[in-house]
Amino acid sequence: MATKINKAIKVSQKHLLGIQDLSINDVNLILEEAKSFIKLNQSKNKKLNVLSGKTQINLFFEPSTRTQSSFELAGKRLGADVMSMNMANSAIKKGETLIDTAMTLNAMHPDIIVIRHQDSGACNLLSQKVNCAVLNAGDGSREHPTQALLDALTIINRKKKIEGLRVAICGDITHSRVARSNIYLLNMLGAEVNIIAPSNLMPKEIEKFGVNTFTDMKKGLKDCDIVMMLRLQNERMTSSFLSSNREYYEYYGLTPDKLAHAKNDALIMHPGPMNRGIEIDTKLADDINRSVIKEQVELGVAVRMACLKIFCE
Amino acid sequence: MATKINKAIKVSQKHLLGIQDLSINDVNLILEEAKSFIKLNQSKNKKLNVLSGKTQINLFFEPSTRTQSSFELAGKRLGADVMSMNMANSAIKKGETLIDTAMTLNAMHPDIIVIRHQDSGACNLLSQKVNCAVLNAGDGSREHPTQALLDALTIINRKKKIEGLRVAICGDITHSRVARSNIYLLNMLGAEVNIIAPSNLMPKEIEKFGVNTFTDMKKGLKDCDIVMMLRLQNERMTSSFLSSNREYYEYYGLTPDKLAHAKNDALIMHPGPMNRGIEIDTKLADDINRSVIKEQVELGVAVRMACLKIFCE
Amino acid sequence: MATKINKAIKVSQKHLLGIQDLSINDVNLILEEAKSFIKLNQSKNKKLNVLSGKTQINLFFEPSTRTQSSFELAGKRLGADVMSMNMANSAIKKGETLIDTAMTLNAMHPDIIVIRHQDSGACNLLSQKVNCAVLNAGDGSREHPTQALLDALTIINRKKKIEGLRVAICGDITHSRVARSNIYLLNMLGAEVNIIAPSNLMPKEIEKFGVNTFTDMKKGLKDCDIVMMLRLQNERMTSSFLSSNREYYEYYGLTPDKLAHAKNDALIMHPGPMNRGIEIDTKLADDINRSVIKEQVELGVAVRMACLKIFCE
Repeated sequence: MATKINKAIKVSQKHLLGIQDLSINDVNLILEEAKSFIKLNQSKNKKLNVLSGKTQINLFFEPSTRTQSSFELAGKRLGADVMSMNMANSAIKKGETLIDTAMTLNAMHPDIIVIRHQDSGACNLLSQKVNCAVLNAGDGSREHPTQALLDALTIINRKKKIEGLRVAICGDITHSRVARSNIYLLNMLGAEVNIIAPSNLMPKEIEKFGVNTFTDMKKGLKDCDIVMMLRLQNERMTSSFLSSNREYYEYYGLTPDKLAHAKNDALIMHPGPMNRGIEIDTKLADDINRSVIKEQVELGVAVRMACLKIFCE
Repeated sequence: MATKINKAIKVSQKHLLGIQDLSINDVNLILEEAKSFIKLNQSKNKKLNVLSGKTQINLFFEPSTRTQSSFELAGKRLGADVMSMNMANSAIKKGETLIDTAMTLNAMHPDIIVIRHQDSGACNLLSQKVNCAVLNAGDGSREHPTQALLDALTIINRKKKIEGLRVAICGDITHSRVARSNIYLLNMLGAEVNIIAPSNLMPKEIEKFGVNTFTDMKKGLKDCDIVMMLRLQNERMTSSFLSSNREYYEYYGLTPDKLAHAKNDALIMHPGPMNRGIEIDTKLADDINRSVIKEQVELGVAVRMACLKIFCE
Repeated sequence: MATKINKAIKVSQKHLLGIQDLSINDVNLILEEAKSFIKLNQSKNKKLNVLSGKTQINLFFEPSTRTQSSFELAGKRLGADVMSMNMANSAIKKGETLIDTAMTLNAMHPDIIVIRHQDSGACNLLSQKVNCAVLNAGDGSREHPTQALLDALTIINRKKKIEGLRVAICGDITHSRVARSNIYLLNMLGAEVNIIAPSNLMPKEIEKFGVNTFTDMKKGLKDCDIVMMLRLQNERMTSSFLSSNREYYEYYGLTPDKLAHAKNDALIMHPGPMNRGIEIDTKLADDINRSVIKEQVELGVAVRMACLKIFCE
């Protein structure tokens, strides 16, 4: 992988809006930079003042614990001035639009805006209106690029490569920006992608994505190297989608008997937060040999540090 | 203007409670200091550690995006330790009074408290109880001094002076602390002030302020150099005030035909957040030649940096 | 007291979960370290970068103004990267457990987690799951160790010692973690402890704690050196506990006539926030000779700085 990177070339994009916009060189730049931060985050002194004098605004229109925390710690460890704004509660109450909010913040000269928004087009719209770099921390059901990047880094960290691996992504595909970003990135990096979902959570356009689709989980998991479970987005669903959590668990929850169809050394991944006992068996979630769920979170901070550094420059 | 400033003399007040308390020398000190921060905020390295080791507490009893953000970034860029407290949700739930909250925070030795409160007397009361400097970020319908200062800086930045200009302030005067602070400051700096409002949003005592009053917007805008629109404070109003937003827009919304009565090079200002299509035509709000609304936000950070620096010393 | 401390010996615990777990040497280490921060907090430059490069997460599942502020300022003044998370509103909405939230944050490599939680067992559970130090900022009705430590420091600051003093703790003992932590610490440091409460707020097991119990406040206050009032935890109470606030004030509110039974130089303490006119007469709360309530808050920051420094090392 390292051989493909041209360090002299900067990232091709001004913003990180989605994996779709990135070249393979961009991806490799980010992943290589991220690797250099893994050790820093494990060390006693986690401070590196490369973003000193820079202003980072976290603009979260949806509540988030892990992604917002990850970006906040990433920015602070790099020495940026970080301001986190929980927009679910504020501002917009007075009737201001997203664009006016963005223009207002832009006028304060941030160097980077990290945005999460419930609408799929929000990040792109924002990026057209501001002077600084925009990092997408999840927009509607469109993309969540840093999640896919941290997933890729986690896989590489364990399997040394992504090319040639068979990766299953299983669950609520329809509502999942995590699935979309991962499909783009895994395809780009040469993995084979199996998509597993009940038919009512499998979007029709998915076949255009160059993936294999399955409604039978055991078939979809066959010989997989990686099993990515998705969170059931209860808050985005109407009740008609699913008859019950119990039925979902029976057919699509990750259990030892279903996992047995994957490779013996298959890794279990989940973007969190998990609904234990619904989309994943609680013992498998905590299996220290197979589950890399905590490592995903750990490497997530490194990936976000890399993105902040690269897109701030 | 610069000739009037005596740099050797410090600001005459311990607190920034309102424009009413400031001398013209105080105002000039703040505006000159603010000018020096405009470039800093536009540069790559926005950090200046003049408030390192100082503690700034932002105590907001009303929700706010732009003012709180502006003060938070201002403090962080100056190197202060900034703690922002959203009091709309917390503390007071346990039945504590404003004064007890203030006394508690005061005992933690902040160097500056920035407060926004729904009651007009809150800032003055607070300032009598604490040892540190208090900056008013808006108290009831009384004063919002940093808004008036940033408005003045914006006008000076464009028109080179304030003295002799004719400034219209238009909209909901009754509930507007922005209007009051601007009236005080514009009068002090030698502008002529026209106040335009429907009679039910025009407070009776306004004539004591040394302004011209109008209920007809076109008459009020005649030959003005500056048109300051105010936000319709829907949240402070009872329904009886206005028959409808549509009717308001027709009579008091800023539209091209009404603006035609002002000077050709009149500037459009708005403290934000805007209700587009109610108090202002959306194209005028975005008119890059005439609208300085974004510049107000930009210079707002500089003005707050100046106030933090000056009142912290 | 200083003679008992062995500075070469580090604190015996990895976490600060409760006073119960501390040795007298631990307590003395913390109190001595805290004394060194009192002056710093009163000085113009409050910054000391001993925790630079460290990450402190404040994880508050219950709303809090003073304790969270105190920990946040303490960490920032020591140069740590501080992230405060208001969990009452977020994350958990998506159905994640405390443990999964903790594991997620742990994977981001914080050096210290400060937690407040409504369940008495939460801090201990958390400490078993994470690699970093855990500081208990109040868990259910179990312990609030930094409150007891700051109370001890306040007493020592005024009375020069704790040994041999008679201390009354008065109010809602049943729901009070402050009472429990103070009982442990005062006993350890050689004070005599009088517990005063109405019988329905006096837990049965209290007699095992080595204290004297009283339902008559005047008897319980007799010859006391210190009078610690507790906050009436209205939010934890069912209405049957008390017939009325007025009746409570008559029998258990601290008033001049009741205080007359304590020593002439008895100090008045309260952990805040106060319900004035219910558990304490408002004049007594503000009595500059006898009330040390503000000093408790002031020394609280110093105690938290000491705890952060000691448990981060």
